[in-house]
Amino acid sequence: MTINEKALKLHEEWNGKLEIVAKSPVKSREDLSLAYTPGVAEPCKVIAQDKEAAYKYTMKANTVAVVSDGSAVLGLGNIGPYAAMPVMEGKAVLFKEFGGVNAVPICLDTQDTEEIIKAVTYLAPGFGGINLEDISAPRCFEIEERLKEILDIPVFHDDQHGTAIVVLAGIINALKVVGKKKEDCRIVVNGAGSAGVAITRLLLTYGFPHITMCDKVGIVSKKTEGLNWMQQKMAELTNLDQQTGTLADAMKGADIFVGVSAPGIVTPEMVASMNRDAILFAMANPVPEIMPDIAKAAGAKVVGTGRSDFPNQVNNVVAFPGIFKGALEGRAPKITEEMKLAAANAIASLVPDEELNEDNIMPEAFNPRVAEVVAEAVRSHIER
Amino acid sequence: MTINEKALKLHEEWNGKLEIVAKSPVKSREDLSLAYTPGVAEPCKVIAQDKEAAYKYTMKANTVAVVSDGSAVLGLGNIGPYAAMPVMEGKAVLFKEFGGVNAVPICLDTQDTEEIIKAVTYLAPGFGGINLEDISAPRCFEIEERLKEILDIPVFHDDQHGTAIVVLAGIINALKVVGKKKEDCRIVVNGAGSAGVAITRLLLTYGFPHITMCDKVGIVSKKTEGLNWMQQKMAELTNLDQQTGTLADAMKGADIFVGVSAPGIVTPEMVASMNRDAILFAMANPVPEIMPDIAKAAGAKVVGTGRSDFPNQVNNVVAFPGIFKGALEGRAPKITEEMKLAAANAIASLVPDEELNEDNIMPEAFNPRVAEVVAEAVRSHIER
Repeated sequence: MTINEKALKLHEEWNGKLEIVAKSPVKSREDLSLAYTPGVAEPCKVIAQDKEAAYKYTMKANTVAVVSDGSAVLGLGNIGPYAAMPVMEGKAVLFKEFGGVNAVPICLDTQDTEEIIKAVTYLAPGFGGINLEDISAPRCFEIEERLKEILDIPVFHDDQHGTAIVVLAGIINALKVVGKKKEDCRIVVNGAGSAGVAITRLLLTYGFPHITMCDKVGIVSKKTEGLNWMQQKMAELTNLDQQTGTLADAMKGADIFVGVSAPGIVTPEMVASMNRDAILFAMANPVPEIMPDIAKAAGAKVVGTGRSDFPNQVNNVVAFPGIFKGALEGRAPKITEEMKLAAANAIASLVPDEELNEDNIMPEAFNPRVAEVVAEAVRSHIER
Repeated sequence: MTINEKALKLHEEWNGKLEIVAKSPVKSREDLSLAYTPGVAEPCKVIAQDKEAAYKYTMKANTVAVVSDGSAVLGLGNIGPYAAMPVMEGKAVLFKEFGGVNAVPICLDTQDTEEIIKAVTYLAPGFGGINLEDISAPRCFEIEERLKEILDIPVFHDDQHGTAIVVLAGIINALKVVGKKKEDCRIVVNGAGSAGVAITRLLLTYGFPHITMCDKVGIVSKKTEGLNWMQQKMAELTNLDQQTGTLADAMKGADIFVGVSAPGIVTPEMVASMNRDAILFAMANPVPEIMPDIAKAAGAKVVGTGRSDFPNQVNNVVAFPGIFKGALEGRAPKITEEMKLAAANAIASLVPDEELNEDNIMPEAFNPRVAEVVAEAVRSHIER
């Protein structure tokens, strides 16, 4: 049986990957009067006087909603809210298993930006955070930004920021391996969707001066036609010399390539044209932009992918559970840029310098310390 | 420590009465590839082809949303969505503990009828049913009716129908105790809010010919001023001789009194004015319309209340867990009138004739057979 056949069979056996269980037993009339009427009126009255008490008496303290509209699910595209459920349930499983955070999958039956914003705003009171997931660009940018303005709980689009944080963590460690400084590096990010935009923005914030974005049309510049509003904004922030041309043109002399694009579109020649000790994150899934052995043969020093069967897996699971764990524990109203940078540094720090090498720049996802270390980094950067 | 003090302390210890746990373990890379990527894509693809497969591969099969806007919570009134959470969490606990049904509390930060309808419509894909809770009348009537039209999953306002089903069950058994037939009974329902309206409608459906509703203004008739649209509709369906006057006028000669109104408003004189072997359900909480001992001294034969410390407790917990359990197991698209009547008969049947007496007309809430018997009754009345 292939992994896919086994997964389908298991999903049928599970019949839902989550179970909602009571922490409050109800085995007697007294139990009933404590967990439900009349006793339940007491915490209600306290919260009615002071909304903050919701964190003391309800599951809001440790529960996030995993919200999708099913418009950009994995590599499957716009499969809608029903078909997106297995992914959102899986995400909720990871929240619990890796971060101890309760997560409720919510798949919305609308793909209208305004309606999604309203729906999430309405359902927010019971949740301590909102993890947006698999919402297509550029709607995901507006939805997240608007919800961050409206709500007083963290709103985090994991496809953007989770990926960006883990990529930055990998780059921090890869630079140690090759002995380069961020100020001297030129980066090419291929793929100007939600992940590519967020990666670029976080790398800029971290202090990389020279980033060039590419998309299907080639290098993204102010002159590029057909860009959405976010890509236009990125054209202002990147490509400082407003280079034009192809991906191959962009990669000449670059130190770092980050691909969130399509299988096999990077050739050995492109890798060979990069600067010495090139770093590649080829994260198209399941088939990377270039296979690691081919990239290495062409001269790359460090290669990461999204896959677990190659070294240096870039896996969001080392980020989002700890990020929300820390944000919830510290009652953060927002996930700030400082918290994202702190999370990336924390993830990078989980590989001790003496263990760092070109095939070991990312921490093991199943290391139980990961979420705690990331959470502590996030908590210590909460502003009041 | 009083029960209220204890309840508050426990709610702080629980810090949320629900926990969301994974049925799919994620302890290894293989686990991760089965519950999440890449394996999770398989059920997604199947559901994208056939929406019904969501019942096979996701938690939709056995999960309801418990939705409130916090506008009419217990006896506390309009305390809003944050303060309503402990009640909705408690309700979810009861769904699981009594019916084995997963339930997610959703407290909506809007009290606009149209916005509530849209929000529930949007979040429905991941759920197998919607339990509306503690939404004020008359908005609750429109919200429920509209959602029943829009959605293809059961929508059930428990304050209305759960209460109505349990009251009908109690009346069915009380009539056996006093030896009267439904055709010969005159009923007074006091309180024309969500519960009173639903009780009246279900009793009419069951076949009671003569029901008179009362509210703060006295007897509800077509001439009564200030009625909302639902009360106007009820004035058409009830009070066949269009009597006017007070609650005391209505109760003269009545066989059954059902109160979902206010503490202490029924006097011994009113009870004495009823027909012989009168049946009273005095369900104002925590203080009934008349205390059972006083009602009995005034001539009542059977008295039920909402309280667990008197005989004949009318408790929704014998209804809603089994109703949703049956509806979900049978994939009912709706909770129909036939299913409600079947549930009421099933609840009544749980007290065997030989055990029936004036102080034992309701089944014990903690009887583990209750939910199964109710579920079976519901399942067997699903129309295809």
